[in-house]
Amino acid sequence: MIKIIIDVFSGDDPQALIRGTAAAVNVYPDVHVIMPGDPTYLERELALCDYDVSRLEILPASEVIGNDESPTAAIRQKRDSSLVRGATLLRADPEVGGMISAGSTGAILCCGIFVVGRIRGIDRPALAPVLPTVDGGSVCLIDCGANADCRSEYLGQFALLGTGLMRSLCGVKEPRVALVNVGVEGHKGNILTSQTTKILSEMPINFVGNMEAREALSGKYDVLVCDGFVGNVLLKSIEGTAAYAVSEMAQVLKRKLPGADADIVDAAAREVMRNYDYNSYGGAYLLGCRKPIEKIHGAANERTIPYAVGQMRSMILSGMADKISEQLDAMSRKPVSE
Amino acid sequence: MIKIIIDVFSGDDPQALIRGTAAAVNVYPDVHVIMPGDPTYLERELALCDYDVSRLEILPASEVIGNDESPTAAIRQKRDSSLVRGATLLRADPEVGGMISAGSTGAILCCGIFVVGRIRGIDRPALAPVLPTVDGGSVCLIDCGANADCRSEYLGQFALLGTGLMRSLCGVKEPRVALVNVGVEGHKGNILTSQTTKILSEMPINFVGNMEAREALSGKYDVLVCDGFVGNVLLKSIEGTAAYAVSEMAQVLKRKLPGADADIVDAAAREVMRNYDYNSYGGAYLLGCRKPIEKIHGAANERTIPYAVGQMRSMILSGMADKISEQLDAMSRKPVSE
Repeated sequence: MIKIIIDVFSGDDPQALIRGTAAAVNVYPDVHVIMPGDPTYLERELALCDYDVSRLEILPASEVIGNDESPTAAIRQKRDSSLVRGATLLRADPEVGGMISAGSTGAILCCGIFVVGRIRGIDRPALAPVLPTVDGGSVCLIDCGANADCRSEYLGQFALLGTGLMRSLCGVKEPRVALVNVGVEGHKGNILTSQTTKILSEMPINFVGNMEAREALSGKYDVLVCDGFVGNVLLKSIEGTAAYAVSEMAQVLKRKLPGADADIVDAAAREVMRNYDYNSYGGAYLLGCRKPIEKIHGAANERTIPYAVGQMRSMILSGMADKISEQLDAMSRKPVSE
Repeated sequence: MIKIIIDVFSGDDPQALIRGTAAAVNVYPDVHVIMPGDPTYLERELALCDYDVSRLEILPASEVIGNDESPTAAIRQKRDSSLVRGATLLRADPEVGGMISAGSTGAILCCGIFVVGRIRGIDRPALAPVLPTVDGGSVCLIDCGANADCRSEYLGQFALLGTGLMRSLCGVKEPRVALVNVGVEGHKGNILTSQTTKILSEMPINFVGNMEAREALSGKYDVLVCDGFVGNVLLKSIEGTAAYAVSEMAQVLKRKLPGADADIVDAAAREVMRNYDYNSYGGAYLLGCRKPIEKIHGAANERTIPYAVGQMRSMILSGMADKISEQLDAMSRKPVSE
């Protein structure tokens, strides 16, 4: 049985996420879910769902860490919050494989670092979504928001983590790692990218050079490395632009093809948007901690959870955290950033 | 007569840009164009075009600054390049109102600073495209690539320049200025945005707070302020994502609506892409120099030039550079960053 902790309580709509969790239990018969939170609330909402009750247990936790709280203070003060209870169990119970949380990025990052603990050799865990590319593949964007200010050594570690993820999760043997930059030419960029280029060139990874943001989803790369500020801007701009462009396209088509069925045009828009929608592709992995943690978006909905559980299940089955740890050990024999 | 310099020679396709220049002369009867470059080449290509020859003159220049050259060295060494000749005339001739160039960002920036000269009070000129928003309006993104590493004072100046541009060019009385950030909450961001928030809050502009990248084209903002690295990533990601999303939408529709006319679907895709295509919306203004300079994309094509000439013509007619200078003087009475 694959044990996964699901913390639904810092999201915008815990009720929808509880329904999604019940649905995920039904989709994956080998998954056992542990939900930290207020037992009364959870029991009341779960009573409305139809699922296998033997594979979902409640871990009592009386508090919730909000989006606006200082992450470090909240982690220290709210010991009985759903997120801290979940992270503590994740660290303590060898049978528990990973955690999914709708909590704030900062709080999840703090829990990852201070409660679950980092992989040896990793200074700063990073958030990495795996996005669908236009050729039907996937690309990992690391960091997408955990570390707003980065040193070049961190970006080097992100490249290792992203390489490990794409190997373990997607079976890519030599993931093509690119540095997000303002031009493909080597001399372009800022101080951080110029230092990072040097580090990445000397690492035992498949570093293919700079990438301009318009190529992010081209399928030419497997891992995109950048600081968390740039990654966050890139990710959100992909989301927002796709939504606008698809909606405009639907409007223009309804005008140009008055005979066409508006429902079919809307269905096509929804189909395309699934590739660009946070809620469909689950969320982002917090990489660099001893066990995998997946952050789902604050605005995640019912559909998000089964998808995220499927991803987490694959990560646990592949022994990803252990493999990354082994890869880091192997790589550390060639000294990189120290 | 509005005199505009057009430097077509560092683009990927000078021939197309020459045809575009001849077309622009026909579109705007009050515009007089000066083209710096190799007279033999220009005369040969222009001979293939049909236009009013009395309103297009050639300024002999034997060299071209390439995309891969060091901008500062190239500006010093290639005094007879089309870009340096153009910038020198722009500075010297009071009758010349502005310049459009397909040159590299770095070379145009160097020419702007060292040849044309900065507006007093501006440390670093910035590149600012004006993008169409989904509600039919426009938004200025500043900086989109001139300054990869920025101090917070520069971002404060960008806010002034963007405010001046949207007032002068688009007639927005109190442009809503937002800081590109990773969250709308005040405490989110990196060291640069946290310092910049303080500066922008104290400035005599309409600063409305942080903006997440997914809202860039929402129409809720008139000026988006960020460093040139982040702006470049944001701009290119908008371009790339829109192209992918629209093309996927066209594919899905052709599959779902087999009876629909494929030509109409493709026409709809082209119509939507015009809003997201560098070539349609001209290029980016280099703001902060004594006279307006517009950088068009290296991959600009024939259609780009008439559009860019129209923009430049409006800027010159509005006396934009003078207005920005006056606004800066007025604002400097309230000390901001110094």
